[in-house]
Amino acid sequence: MHAEKKIAILGLGLMGGSLGLALKGRGYGGCVQGYARRAETVRHALEHGLCDHAGSEAPEAVADADLVVVCVPVLSIPSLIREVRGALKPGAVITDVGSTKAWLHAEVEKILDGTKVSFVGSHPVAGSEKSGAEAARSDLYAGARCVLTGNEATPEPAMLRVATLWNFAGCRVSVMDPESHDRMLARTSHLPHLLSSALAMAVSRPDGGAPEADFCGPGYRSMTRLACGSPGMWRDIFESNRSNLLHEMEAIRSDLAQLHGLIERNEMDALERYLRQAGELRRHLVSEQQADGSDE
Amino acid sequence: MHAEKKIAILGLGLMGGSLGLALKGRGYGGCVQGYARRAETVRHALEHGLCDHAGSEAPEAVADADLVVVCVPVLSIPSLIREVRGALKPGAVITDVGSTKAWLHAEVEKILDGTKVSFVGSHPVAGSEKSGAEAARSDLYAGARCVLTGNEATPEPAMLRVATLWNFAGCRVSVMDPESHDRMLARTSHLPHLLSSALAMAVSRPDGGAPEADFCGPGYRSMTRLACGSPGMWRDIFESNRSNLLHEMEAIRSDLAQLHGLIERNEMDALERYLRQAGELRRHLVSEQQADGSDE
Repeated sequence: MHAEKKIAILGLGLMGGSLGLALKGRGYGGCVQGYARRAETVRHALEHGLCDHAGSEAPEAVADADLVVVCVPVLSIPSLIREVRGALKPGAVITDVGSTKAWLHAEVEKILDGTKVSFVGSHPVAGSEKSGAEAARSDLYAGARCVLTGNEATPEPAMLRVATLWNFAGCRVSVMDPESHDRMLARTSHLPHLLSSALAMAVSRPDGGAPEADFCGPGYRSMTRLACGSPGMWRDIFESNRSNLLHEMEAIRSDLAQLHGLIERNEMDALERYLRQAGELRRHLVSEQQADGSDE
Repeated sequence: MHAEKKIAILGLGLMGGSLGLALKGRGYGGCVQGYARRAETVRHALEHGLCDHAGSEAPEAVADADLVVVCVPVLSIPSLIREVRGALKPGAVITDVGSTKAWLHAEVEKILDGTKVSFVGSHPVAGSEKSGAEAARSDLYAGARCVLTGNEATPEPAMLRVATLWNFAGCRVSVMDPESHDRMLARTSHLPHLLSSALAMAVSRPDGGAPEADFCGPGYRSMTRLACGSPGMWRDIFESNRSNLLHEMEAIRSDLAQLHGLIERNEMDALERYLRQAGELRRHLVSEQQADGSDE
């Protein structure tokens, strides 16, 4: 990491702020320069040590930066990169923390065409239903998986520098192409979020009427926690991964139709087998993660 | 609670074992008599102080008991009550910890007809994806809601004695009729469990192929935790609340069809409004619970 003298973090919310805290907390010796649109966020970031310097002018923030990490809602990334394009240092590498990648690579590579700046996609699989600079914490990335995305246009050294960044912040890094990333995340993240929101809405249906908060136990609470995520951020994610998400929606709707049929026909042996298999799959996935060093 | 000299707990798994621990831990002065079918569970219960005495003969366990708490999978409750019927003390009260109530009241009231023993339904809304005596813990019920169910046949003093039991174990008690209970729980507990299982299965679909454990972040983990629950126990719950569960399945499938349509037609403003409303509803429910003393 000593090769990177200055790292610019554009956007100082949960993801950007936590990255700043992790870099400073783990002893990064260079300069962490922050940027946030709102003066209030800049003030908060400086007061809480999310970065060494901060301001509200994005082009100023990226000047002389070796690495630029764009931590704004995913659909806002291209316009922000367009805004700072002229101020980027030749040889710099840009990355991000967005949840969808195929469209982003296409957009950003168009914008950077003709510069000496490379783009590598980053998706640290970490987060919280909380958002904003106040939610930033130094251990957000500790033990998390970070997926880097690149294609044939992505220079190997740029990929390595971004991998080093996330390793330093505490992540375990893996690499895949943007399309596979988006397909996978539709299933493991975007679909679960939609189901969580649908379930939170279900309790408001007018055919209820009892004091329902009383009946929402720990199971219901864990199933609806995601529904508290930022609506604007998730809107962007869904919009930028629509075709994969539609594919997953079709698949889960067909699974639910099948389960509905089992219950309707009282095929309880088959239902029990389904429940058993689901439990085994889930335990297997989580134990794989734990063997791999991540926390539950 | 000093009116109850002896409390029999039939079934010493997570629910029964935790009740024994709570009673002893909170200073209940009477005798806690346990029953478990398997000798191994009886041994474990005695070694870990889940009860004062324990054995593998249910009729012996209920002899002289003032309160009998049946803590076996819900569909096994009637046959166990039938087995101990002749040994029950006149004036005793039976309750349970099952998750479905309408059918249970009908069954148990038939069995107890002609005895001087009353039945009150109990459903402590607490639990864990873990099961068995090893998972028992003294604080499982602390702060949890416990729903008592009764109908016109349920004597008021019996209801009061069961309410006192759960208050003593740390629960906040409320009362409703069995049918409303089952309708509500289908929505707040049984449906979420099915969705959790379906989501756990989704990750195994053959059109995946990448090392998926890497991409299952904290959101996916919280959405699939329930899927690890005991398949046999949940089979019973689903079977004994089929019509309400089918109603909820229809409703959520129609909600998902609507969400699917929004995404397909790219109606992102409407989708964002939906996400926002879902988050508000969930925050409101959970803050009501917390104001009411329960933990998140």
